[in-house]
Amino acid sequence: MVNVVITGGAGFLGSRLARELLAAGSLDAAGGGASPLSRVTLIDQAPVPPDLAADDRVTAVHGELGELLDPEGAGPDTLAGADVIFHLAAAVSGECEADFDLGLRANLRATEALLASGRALGTSPVVVFSSSLAVFGGSEDLPLPDVVDDRTRPNPQTSYGAQKHIGEQLLADYTRKGFLRGRALRLVSVSVRPGRPNAAASGFMSGVIREPLAGQRAICPVTPDTEVALASPAKAIAGLLCAATASDQAWGGRSAVNLPALTISLADMAAALARVAGPEVSALIDWVPDPEVARMVSGWPARVRADRAGRLGLTPDPDFDAIIRMHLAESGS
Amino acid sequence: MVNVVITGGAGFLGSRLARELLAAGSLDAAGGGASPLSRVTLIDQAPVPPDLAADDRVTAVHGELGELLDPEGAGPDTLAGADVIFHLAAAVSGECEADFDLGLRANLRATEALLASGRALGTSPVVVFSSSLAVFGGSEDLPLPDVVDDRTRPNPQTSYGAQKHIGEQLLADYTRKGFLRGRALRLVSVSVRPGRPNAAASGFMSGVIREPLAGQRAICPVTPDTEVALASPAKAIAGLLCAATASDQAWGGRSAVNLPALTISLADMAAALARVAGPEVSALIDWVPDPEVARMVSGWPARVRADRAGRLGLTPDPDFDAIIRMHLAESGS
Repeated sequence: MVNVVITGGAGFLGSRLARELLAAGSLDAAGGGASPLSRVTLIDQAPVPPDLAADDRVTAVHGELGELLDPEGAGPDTLAGADVIFHLAAAVSGECEADFDLGLRANLRATEALLASGRALGTSPVVVFSSSLAVFGGSEDLPLPDVVDDRTRPNPQTSYGAQKHIGEQLLADYTRKGFLRGRALRLVSVSVRPGRPNAAASGFMSGVIREPLAGQRAICPVTPDTEVALASPAKAIAGLLCAATASDQAWGGRSAVNLPALTISLADMAAALARVAGPEVSALIDWVPDPEVARMVSGWPARVRADRAGRLGLTPDPDFDAIIRMHLAESGS
Repeated sequence: MVNVVITGGAGFLGSRLARELLAAGSLDAAGGGASPLSRVTLIDQAPVPPDLAADDRVTAVHGELGELLDPEGAGPDTLAGADVIFHLAAAVSGECEADFDLGLRANLRATEALLASGRALGTSPVVVFSSSLAVFGGSEDLPLPDVVDDRTRPNPQTSYGAQKHIGEQLLADYTRKGFLRGRALRLVSVSVRPGRPNAAASGFMSGVIREPLAGQRAICPVTPDTEVALASPAKAIAGLLCAATASDQAWGGRSAVNLPALTISLADMAAALARVAGPEVSALIDWVPDPEVARMVSGWPARVRADRAGRLGLTPDPDFDAIIRMHLAESGS
């Protein structure tokens, strides 16, 4: 029996991951052989979606992760019995730039508490950490290469990226010590993310598609020639599942793995939207550059090599038209 | 007037740094112009040496750094008025491998508390962080290059190295936000360190010289052909002072700067000892490899390029004979 914990389990990726796990009914944790899913614990500050709450294998734990895992409180008991922990909870990039303390608390302290609690289990659980391409960046002393790969030196230029990179380092050291079996996967911007906009600086990469498809105008805060690296929700979930199920040998080391990404300009995303849904839909995009968003986005790599993920069988989305069609099918439009 | 705080101020490097600052009587903080030294606060768990305690510009603060700086305790008041903070306090590599929690507490949490307290001053003080060459390392997924430079990707293979690398990342982000003016300097193994052995895995690089010169046998836990990168105490102090006094522009970025190092094998160190002090002295070295120490040491880079430090005028020691003679002169032998 496999006991799974998902932090950020009520969020978009967390709840989608939970649905896929529950539908499969079993999980092959770190290549040890598939085993039935006994329990899925979803930890989040937000309420768990009703369909998940209704599944009797699901336990919802409501609260702030750092507080829930405080060793002077319930602490490690929150994770009791966990075999596989997906650590997806995080404050997003825009929030962390606006509120430095929030980022320290939600990304740094909560991750420290999660790793300490996972270690306290004494069973060396698999911990899949959702890191981010935001660990990369360019500065005068360390320019960003045109293409980043799994061996490129991280150089975060946002607090969010710095906190994710620190999480990678902590996870690697806990893994080296044998306290956990850590797998850090660097997610790229997910598009098309359904639902409402969030405070991620990358949020427009979904908004400029999602809102026009719903008949609403959307602002694109970067210029049309801006290239971005992105992946569909399905590819992001496939990456997280691969990280949980690969054997240690197949995973191939303690450093983080880049998720394969599709590189595309915002102009080409808009053109794909016009092809799939019509030019009257793509005309709903208002191109209004925002210097602060543009600064963050231009600091992230747009071209990603994902050799380790490729060896694990992960692939980027083939093109953006397919991503839009997938979004339409999934959102029931 | 310049107010200086030194964490680890009772330690070997900290007290030597304090003596040099007090003798100079002034400091040019970050290139803003030399100004008289008003106060030197030495924070340490160990008592401050009597000569420093007797100087009326010195304030000794006794206690554990993380506790002293706890925001729920005296917190930032401990640093009140600080213009320049040298953060040297740390648990050393051997201790952190043996006691994971000690490393988290003494290196990670204390550094987090120091940065938060420095930010709380609201004056953006200069913070010189003693990082370490131990941030580098080789693993199957990320081999160590033959020569590391300022742009080489860190890949710590010890908890000490991981914690130092995390400190670099935090310092860089606090600096990017304008909360501090951070300068991370990667110290190399210091030899010849006077006094008693400590728990650093690199301790033998001093012990195999210091103990024989004092007529005592010393164990060398690595093979004679093992190459190491090291610097004399004087070069380490020069690096720390340079980090505090360089202008932002001269320092050249938020990423860490490698201290220039002399690369030498243990066999050549023993040969230098024989030349300077006689073969009967170098014969006091017992070559007894210790696999655990050898593992840590072999994981550290032996060849270092220090381009940014070179542009700042820092140089490696010319040869090991000079280092031994300097030690003899300073120890009054």
